[in-house]
Amino acid sequence: MAVQDRSCATRQTIIAGAAEVFEKSGYGRASLIQVAERAQVTKGALYFHFASKQDLAKAVIEEQHRLVVHDGLTVLQEGRPPLDAMIVMCREFGHRLLHDPVVRAGIRLTFEASSFGRSVHEPYEDWIRVMENLATRAITDGAIREGIAPSVLAKFVVASFTGVQMVSDVRTGREDVMERIRDMWQILLPGIQRDMSPDRIGRLLDLIPRNCQAETEH
Amino acid sequence: MAVQDRSCATRQTIIAGAAEVFEKSGYGRASLIQVAERAQVTKGALYFHFASKQDLAKAVIEEQHRLVVHDGLTVLQEGRPPLDAMIVMCREFGHRLLHDPVVRAGIRLTFEASSFGRSVHEPYEDWIRVMENLATRAITDGAIREGIAPSVLAKFVVASFTGVQMVSDVRTGREDVMERIRDMWQILLPGIQRDMSPDRIGRLLDLIPRNCQAETEH
Repeated sequence: MAVQDRSCATRQTIIAGAAEVFEKSGYGRASLIQVAERAQVTKGALYFHFASKQDLAKAVIEEQHRLVVHDGLTVLQEGRPPLDAMIVMCREFGHRLLHDPVVRAGIRLTFEASSFGRSVHEPYEDWIRVMENLATRAITDGAIREGIAPSVLAKFVVASFTGVQMVSDVRTGREDVMERIRDMWQILLPGIQRDMSPDRIGRLLDLIPRNCQAETEH
Repeated sequence: MAVQDRSCATRQTIIAGAAEVFEKSGYGRASLIQVAERAQVTKGALYFHFASKQDLAKAVIEEQHRLVVHDGLTVLQEGRPPLDAMIVMCREFGHRLLHDPVVRAGIRLTFEASSFGRSVHEPYEDWIRVMENLATRAITDGAIREGIAPSVLAKFVVASFTGVQMVSDVRTGREDVMERIRDMWQILLPGIQRDMSPDRIGRLLDLIPRNCQAETEH
């Protein structure tokens, strides 16, 4: 491995270790020593890459956002109809929240960020932009009825998804998160779709399976 | 003033001071000394009432929840139709978030709670129960269409409201919170109501004024 690759690999190892520590202990109780131990690197190596706990938290949040944006781009490249893509993106995000420690830690840190004096708003802006773009196309395609402002719908989808997964975390440790995401769309769809036939709604809801076993679809 | 009243008044003064400090600095950076200064009490008086910063944060969260529950009971006592009551409760909560430092601090601390190792879920359970009760009555009254499960709707209203006000805080410092709460109902109503006439929806949305000046209604 070239020196640069090795340095990059060490950085990723540290971020993965930090994610596990932050996810378990929260920002306030996490320590750099715990992170170094978990990542199996020396404190020197850790300080070479990250000057402070705050730096490390920022890196985990950024890595989390990168992963989720990557999922979003994959969904876009699959060429699904835009309303389907909006639903599948929520499903994929839910899936990451269930199974990916970096995403779990990144979201926890995003919520806790105000406690360490930062406000993390860029990921929300990115998501609102993507959802607004999809909603605009879904109206053109005739999937979402006219009279709904894409920017209003996009802001609400992002905000309500944020609340849904957060409340699911607080109430059930995210055990019911996929079911709650499905419920979200079950309540939203009849109000926003042009074709309100139960068949069409059922087909869209099938994009989010009821049980976790089936979640690995796609 | 009797000794007990004076002690109670001091406790309330400390909670109000703590709310201002927590709201401004967040849990992580707030100190008991700042709180004593803000509340204009001695450190001794503060420690008489609260053993730790965590105790103080818990008291602010409880006082916030008490205020919001009080608003909820007021709305219930007004004898509004149940769907109207659901909307007005969200409006009143939004209003508190704009204007009441204890509620602002309590919500901030609730989100930050995981960073200091607590999980605050009781207020969510209370709200879900109230909303589920109202949704059940609204279905009986024929305001909400059959086929919507009250428990599903209640969980989604509470979770999406949580996300809406949180994302509004992160993005605009809550400047747009009333507008976003109105948008939330504008998107939800066409999907959940039995009578979907624009007149009926317009009348319900009028419960949440567009601008802040009109918010003091009721």
